[in-house]
Amino acid sequence: MEKIGVGLIGTGYMGKCHALAWNAVQGVFGGKLKPELVMLATANEELAAARAKDFGFAKSTGNWRDMLADPDVHIISITTPNEFHPEMAIAALQAGKHVYCEKPMAPSFAEAKNMLEAARKSGKQTFLGYNYIQNPMMRRIRTLLDAGEIGDVLQVRLEMDEDFMANPADEWSIRSGAASGFGALDDFGVHTMSLLMALNLRMAKVLCQMSKPYETRKDANGNKKPVETYDMATVLIELANGGNGTIQLNRSAWGRKGRIALQVFGSKGSIVYDQERMNELNVYKAEGDPAAQGYTTILAGPAHPPYDRFIPAPGHSLGFNDLKVIEVSEILKSLQGEEASLIDFEEGIVIEGLVQSMAKSHEKACWITV
Amino acid sequence: MEKIGVGLIGTGYMGKCHALAWNAVQGVFGGKLKPELVMLATANEELAAARAKDFGFAKSTGNWRDMLADPDVHIISITTPNEFHPEMAIAALQAGKHVYCEKPMAPSFAEAKNMLEAARKSGKQTFLGYNYIQNPMMRRIRTLLDAGEIGDVLQVRLEMDEDFMANPADEWSIRSGAASGFGALDDFGVHTMSLLMALNLRMAKVLCQMSKPYETRKDANGNKKPVETYDMATVLIELANGGNGTIQLNRSAWGRKGRIALQVFGSKGSIVYDQERMNELNVYKAEGDPAAQGYTTILAGPAHPPYDRFIPAPGHSLGFNDLKVIEVSEILKSLQGEEASLIDFEEGIVIEGLVQSMAKSHEKACWITV
Amino acid sequence: MEKIGVGLIGTGYMGKCHALAWNAVQGVFGGKLKPELVMLATANEELAAARAKDFGFAKSTGNWRDMLADPDVHIISITTPNEFHPEMAIAALQAGKHVYCEKPMAPSFAEAKNMLEAARKSGKQTFLGYNYIQNPMMRRIRTLLDAGEIGDVLQVRLEMDEDFMANPADEWSIRSGAASGFGALDDFGVHTMSLLMALNLRMAKVLCQMSKPYETRKDANGNKKPVETYDMATVLIELANGGNGTIQLNRSAWGRKGRIALQVFGSKGSIVYDQERMNELNVYKAEGDPAAQGYTTILAGPAHPPYDRFIPAPGHSLGFNDLKVIEVSEILKSLQGEEASLIDFEEGIVIEGLVQSMAKSHEKACWITV
Amino acid sequence: MEKIGVGLIGTGYMGKCHALAWNAVQGVFGGKLKPELVMLATANEELAAARAKDFGFAKSTGNWRDMLADPDVHIISITTPNEFHPEMAIAALQAGKHVYCEKPMAPSFAEAKNMLEAARKSGKQTFLGYNYIQNPMMRRIRTLLDAGEIGDVLQVRLEMDEDFMANPADEWSIRSGAASGFGALDDFGVHTMSLLMALNLRMAKVLCQMSKPYETRKDANGNKKPVETYDMATVLIELANGGNGTIQLNRSAWGRKGRIALQVFGSKGSIVYDQERMNELNVYKAEGDPAAQGYTTILAGPAHPPYDRFIPAPGHSLGFNDLKVIEVSEILKSLQGEEASLIDFEEGIVIEGLVQSMAKSHEKACWITV
Repeated sequence: MEKIGVGLIGTGYMGKCHALAWNAVQGVFGGKLKPELVMLATANEELAAARAKDFGFAKSTGNWRDMLADPDVHIISITTPNEFHPEMAIAALQAGKHVYCEKPMAPSFAEAKNMLEAARKSGKQTFLGYNYIQNPMMRRIRTLLDAGEIGDVLQVRLEMDEDFMANPADEWSIRSGAASGFGALDDFGVHTMSLLMALNLRMAKVLCQMSKPYETRKDANGNKKPVETYDMATVLIELANGGNGTIQLNRSAWGRKGRIALQVFGSKGSIVYDQERMNELNVYKAEGDPAAQGYTTILAGPAHPPYDRFIPAPGHSLGFNDLKVIEVSEILKSLQGEEASLIDFEEGIVIEGLVQSMAKSHEKACWITV
Repeated sequence: MEKIGVGLIGTGYMGKCHALAWNAVQGVFGGKLKPELVMLATANEELAAARAKDFGFAKSTGNWRDMLADPDVHIISITTPNEFHPEMAIAALQAGKHVYCEKPMAPSFAEAKNMLEAARKSGKQTFLGYNYIQNPMMRRIRTLLDAGEIGDVLQVRLEMDEDFMANPADEWSIRSGAASGFGALDDFGVHTMSLLMALNLRMAKVLCQMSKPYETRKDANGNKKPVETYDMATVLIELANGGNGTIQLNRSAWGRKGRIALQVFGSKGSIVYDQERMNELNVYKAEGDPAAQGYTTILAGPAHPPYDRFIPAPGHSLGFNDLKVIEVSEILKSLQGEEASLIDFEEGIVIEGLVQSMAKSHEKACWITV
Repeated sequence: MEKIGVGLIGTGYMGKCHALAWNAVQGVFGGKLKPELVMLATANEELAAARAKDFGFAKSTGNWRDMLADPDVHIISITTPNEFHPEMAIAALQAGKHVYCEKPMAPSFAEAKNMLEAARKSGKQTFLGYNYIQNPMMRRIRTLLDAGEIGDVLQVRLEMDEDFMANPADEWSIRSGAASGFGALDDFGVHTMSLLMALNLRMAKVLCQMSKPYETRKDANGNKKPVETYDMATVLIELANGGNGTIQLNRSAWGRKGRIALQVFGSKGSIVYDQERMNELNVYKAEGDPAAQGYTTILAGPAHPPYDRFIPAPGHSLGFNDLKVIEVSEILKSLQGEEASLIDFEEGIVIEGLVQSMAKSHEKACWITV
Repeated sequence: MEKIGVGLIGTGYMGKCHALAWNAVQGVFGGKLKPELVMLATANEELAAARAKDFGFAKSTGNWRDMLADPDVHIISITTPNEFHPEMAIAALQAGKHVYCEKPMAPSFAEAKNMLEAARKSGKQTFLGYNYIQNPMMRRIRTLLDAGEIGDVLQVRLEMDEDFMANPADEWSIRSGAASGFGALDDFGVHTMSLLMALNLRMAKVLCQMSKPYETRKDANGNKKPVETYDMATVLIELANGGNGTIQLNRSAWGRKGRIALQVFGSKGSIVYDQERMNELNVYKAEGDPAAQGYTTILAGPAHPPYDRFIPAPGHSLGFNDLKVIEVSEILKSLQGEEASLIDFEEGIVIEGLVQSMAKSHEKACWITV
């Protein structure tokens, strides 16, 4: 069993998620390449030390640059706020480390391109944390599409909705500042683009409208401060195959907690999925007796790999964190030269480019060819 | 008990639906004004006679103009294909009859305007068959919105999907010809506009994209014939109140049979509805203990009038045809000078105007102010 | 077109439902035998007159016996409280009328047997208002079972739950008195037995437990009064085919409004249905690729007759009242000598016998062979 | 940070699940007591060595007794087939180890009692793998019940259904032999009893009926062999509080994959849950405007601890394996003397006693007081 040394920067939402996944992957998947948790970094040195113990990292540091020089670290997980991605990723690549960076790549397109350039120069592998594509049900959809089970794809609809920005009484935060990006579009909307990519549904043209549900929010002193980002974005799309569709993004959608609703209409059937019920897939096939036709709700099970690596019994439910474990297992496959389902910086820049095109189409209020 | 004489033109899908509703309304609602089924018209005289017996009409005719001169006929139901609406409606109005016409008003905007002009001149009442607005659950939504239960409306999403045009092997029919109109947009999309109107959600700007899933269909001889209408239409909308949204229309959506999915996101909550489960309403309110928050699925019942006129027990389900009975009861209220929830030609022309604006925005590929 | 004269006793929940159905059936189904609404009876003469006008009956009376002598009345609908069924049904049969009586037959088994005896002597036809068996989805289930689509039936589970007796603060009413019967078992539980009968699933043995959620209720004066009926009944069953199952009845089930949940497990698949979503049927077939297996949710449509007589488009939803129209259309078929799906007094007495056996098994706390 | 040495016997379904949980718990929960994975045992020495590397155990053995003498092992996870539980658990306790044993305790009641006796003598702690009680939604239900949110519990219905024994063509296996126990009742039905216990709903009387859907199965040679276990069990229950209910168990239920459907009806509301959608909870409260009443579907989130330890965002879904991590975190709490939600041998024997009473009531076909 070979080992690969892991460095992790960040201990928040995604930091913990990465740590758990790196820790779990060998137990779940076995495999020849075993991750070794070498170093954990976060600005607060004490916190780094405490979390390193919890997460099982051998060393910790308050200075993430410490891991650049550490020969035991072969890959660096970057889970800090987006604005830090470029500096960290480029430094890591220049230090000869593989990079596993949370999405999106960077707040600006220029920085994302710098990251890609660094990746190309380094010869190292890069991976982006588009974990929703790892759901076995999403792979099942890809299998169905590739096999033509619903015929030609005529229309696709994607909705991604959460409500963490829905409360108008919540204070102005970094997410309302232009420095954080456009808003829903890049903050979480990139996930929907990764899904289309994973399903091999490429966009040809886009027309986007972004909106601010609340024009101002109160700052800590109770003064009104203008909101600079768009909590809602809606995109008309034309697909490269002649089909069409929509992407609707809303992080102010009261009641929606983790919704990524997908509808794919084809010439022979259709597919419906919702991330809030991530272990279910609904498939309609226009064949046979009309009296027997309807959507079939398939529960995730061992017939949908790699569900079987987690649980041998069907219908017992994977969870959100399990998707990260699958993502990490794909990374290990990639590092061993095997084919893997992942989005690297080359693919990631395509997503970032889509974001730019969408934002531009919003500004110009017209269709943009991507 | 006063009587109102009813003439009905057409015996197809909507013809039967009107007949059943005119026949049932007095039993369900009681009320002072009792409809009397006077005359049924359809081109085939024998069919007219047979259906008149089944539906309970006293007389029948193969020539609809016969009812214009009949003093016993006070209101005429027009349920023929759209292309006949203008001639019939105008003639009826000129003959001093009230007109109850199926939606949409006419294949062309000019004709619709003629119909409106005739209505204005006549002094008679007009009604359009936008039956989905009559669902007690839809009225409940209006009540919730008016009471501010979900706060300001920030975003509305409407999807109307059926699959009667989904099979590429189906022959070219009148619905694929330009004479029938634009396609999904006016054929059934107007229903979604009536719902927004009924909910008092007015549009300010629209941007529409229409699409043909199948460029050609075989005619009766097996030869390819170009499809001239758009089975799909997707519309970005800006609301007059500053909110935004989408309308998505697809009559080639395999698996969808009678879907009209509505999502309304507000500053204090949200509402979700689907016509395929027309007796259910989902309401989320952002208040109280977060551990207890979620969508509440309300089953239609006597607390949602006029459900109570049909069934005293809750959760026992109204059906599609019952909506038409409610529509007719509203017509009777209007004819007696009471306030009623209906869309007349004045409101109908607004919908037709929206259709025109959407079609124009599709052509110009840009936003149109409505 | 032949005519059949209808007399209706009662103008409440079921009285109105019968009236609407008798009025609608010819319009919906056409057919040779046309019902003529001859006379409406209810104790209050003025109410009878008013409702007769609303419902379209030619005559009205405060004395139901008036219709016995009326030669224009050929069939009598009995929709009064259960305690009046025996006297009315027997008198009607003796007067040479067909009888259409709401379920259950009678408060006591002896009376039900008298009714059956009267029916046998009369040579007239009898029909019981078990309308849930008329749902096209229920017929679809029967078709699937008969065709062996889910193999041998191994287990059936039926739950019927409403909450009209759920509030402990509600006053003692007739439903809490022993004179009304056992409680949930006969009050509405008989519906579940009619469904099993309609699906040809015959019971061989039963073991029933009845329960009182509230031992007392306050009377109009605020004094505690003992509750004599059982709002809950749970029955273990053995089927004649060797299978087994349960029937669970609860009229104090907060949140349930019209639930009749059916699960049928077979050797090759299973079927799941819920009356609260009466236009949906869920079917699982254990065949083909495990990765594609799941419950298929079928929406009621024209492929499920007689849905097509109401609406030509699928997924548009029948309602509860439509089931009564189907029931009446079956009665008309039966009266014309055609095969019909109905429960007459012969079959009804089987259901009443099951109720007796269940009540007895409750008393003896052991299995009873039926 | 103190350490606790873990020994694990078994590498199958539950073996892997325990290993993953022991490995993950510190990362997810932090906490002072850190598990150290000391030794893994399974009969096949090579397999033990390979899995030990995957799962992160320091040592491995083909002889589980090796861990009894190992002073670094403080607690032993037993995940072997039920028949091995007694010998292993008793030996472990006698060797001074804490015991964490998968459910049920033992194939026979006598053996289970021996296990309990050994536990009492040892002074060591014992834990049983009733992981379903660890779902945050289940804890939420307990909170609601304890707070009286749905009033007095009047009726509870539990269904546990899977289809791993549903195929009549599957060969006779150990699960069809009497040595494995009664069948559905103890094989997986004990889970439902653990849930009632966790919800503090104690049974007073039971009446059980067990059934064999298939009387024989073919052995490896194609010869018919009698099935000795019951794949179905249905139990009527009376609760200690005067309420009543049912437990329905079926491991031959085609289409059901991991269903544990719970319905609790109270005097003020009701609760509905299904393990196949383990991140959802449905609560009905009979209060306020009837027009607004319905089941509220709550998505699991940080407001339902310890969901927050896994994911900070609501509606993102825990999975089945996460429940085991929670279980292990409770074990660590217990070992540190804190209050924990677990079922030990003392509580476990109550469940085993219930199984005995149910089996006896099946045999005698009558109610048994428990």
